[in-house]
This record gives sequence, C-alpha cells and structure tokens, in this order.
Amino acid sequence: MEIAFDKSGGLVPAIIQDEATGDVLMLGFMNADSFELTRSTGEVVFFSRSRKRLWKKGGSSGHVLKVSDIRIDCDADALLIRVTPVGPGVCHEGYRSCFFRSLDHEGEPRVIAERTFSPDTVYSQAKSPSANEAK
Amino acid sequence: MEIAFDKSGGLVPAIIQDEATGDVLMLGFMNADSFELTRSTGEVVFFSRSRKRLWKKGGSSGHVLKVSDIRIDCDADALLIRVTPVGPGVCHEGYRSCFFRSLDHEGEPRVIAERTFSPDTVYSQAKSPSANEAK
Repeated sequence: MEIAFDKSGGLVPAIIQDEATGDVLMLGFMNADSFELTRSTGEVVFFSRSRKRLWKKGGSSGHVLKVSDIRIDCDADALLIRVTPVGPGVCHEGYRSCFFRSLDHEGEPRVIAERTFSPDTVYSQAKSPSANEAK
Repeated sequence: MEIAFDKSGGLVPAIIQDEATGDVLMLGFMNADSFELTRSTGEVVFFSRSRKRLWKKGGSSGHVLKVSDIRIDCDADALLIRVTPVGPGVCHEGYRSCFFRSLDHEGEPRVIAERTFSPDTVYSQAKSPSANEAK
C-alpha cells in the first residue's frame, strides 16, 4: 500500500482515536520512517515538524499509544490510527485528549473536559520549543 | 480565539467526526476563510489544496456536513469538527467514511465497510483532478 507522503512535503496527518471510546485524542504528522516504526513496533511514532525529527509519543512520559488498527483514507493521504492509550492522557496540558476545548458562538474557547493528570509532575524536563511535543 | 493558520502555510487540518456514532468520516484542510464560512454557515467548507480554492463539502452531491461542535487542540493548529452528515456518505468512492480501509499485517489495505451509495449516480459530472474533491 503506497501512502501519499510526497503530496505534502513527505508528511501525512495521522488522527489518533481511542479505540474503546471513539474519542479523537490528537493529531500528529508522520513521514515514511515514523509510519514504518509505528507499524513495526505497534506504538505511535510521529515526525515532529518543529524539531524535524522522529518523536515517539510517550517517550518521556511513558504515555505511549498502543496501535490497534491503522486505517487509510480514499486518497491515501491521511491516516486514522486507532489506539489504546497507556496512561491518563495524551495532552501536555494534562487532559485525556488534546481537543479539550470547544469554540462557543463567539468563537471563544471553552474547556469541556476535566484534567486527568498534572503536567508538572509528568513532564519534569525543561520546556521544549513546542511544549506539545514533550508529551 | 486565534487559530495557528500561519504554522503551515495558512492551512490547518480539520478532522470530521460523526457526532452520533463517533466515527471519523474524513480529514480536510481549512484556511481562515473556509473556517469562518464553516462557523458562520454551520456547514463544512474546506480549502482544496490541489485546486487552491474554497470547497464546500456536498456542493455537488448535496451531502453537506452540518456542524454540531468545533473543537480545537492544545496548540491551536488542528480542528475537530463534530457533524451530522446529510446523505449516505462523505466518500467519493461511495462509503460513509473515507477511512473504509484498514491495513493488514503486511500493510495491504482491506475494505472494512459496506458501500452506502453509488458514486456514479451521485457524482455525474466529469472527473476532477482530485476525485475526492468532487464529493
């Protein structure tokens, strides 16, 4: 199966969905190497656009994403990866999902979820250029 | 709420999720204009990367996506749009979801869904450069 990595600079978006609940947890990008590592290891590895290197999800926090199923869209340029998340959440702000805010009618964000862990405790290292990628 | 359109050339990925079932239906991209149209009209409008213009989902097929909720991720660079889909499916190949294939252990795609409509009947116009965008 050829994935259209070439279509946008070698990267395709990868949607991460909790297999048990159906909740969308986050979106990352994968290049061919990170995709192959995700397939072969059974744990999600992204490509960090800001750091320009492979980024194993849960590498520092231990909150890895165990792959249940990999789906591909009709144009082969987007991935849907269904996972079992290890740990209380995937978001560096301490939530189960990175999509913890909903926009109201004025376009203002409202938090719609409860914090499930303390980011200060889990991420004890120095802040990274993109905090999200410390996850 | 500022969305990080500038982070990757003016576009952010927008995950489309069926509000009723939790199924991920497709992924498209939005620029600031398509996002504002999506918000103001309550129906999903993408930006087509190949045609470089706004692309109203369901513009030709009538299979529009009614917006229930717009969520934004921690970095404000990805959108999760929960919708009620009008019609039998969003995929130009005749499926309810564009993610109708799963990769097996050899990386080969296997169709895991039933066709819900005939694309030939719904999309009677000439083929577009990216068939997906005729949807």
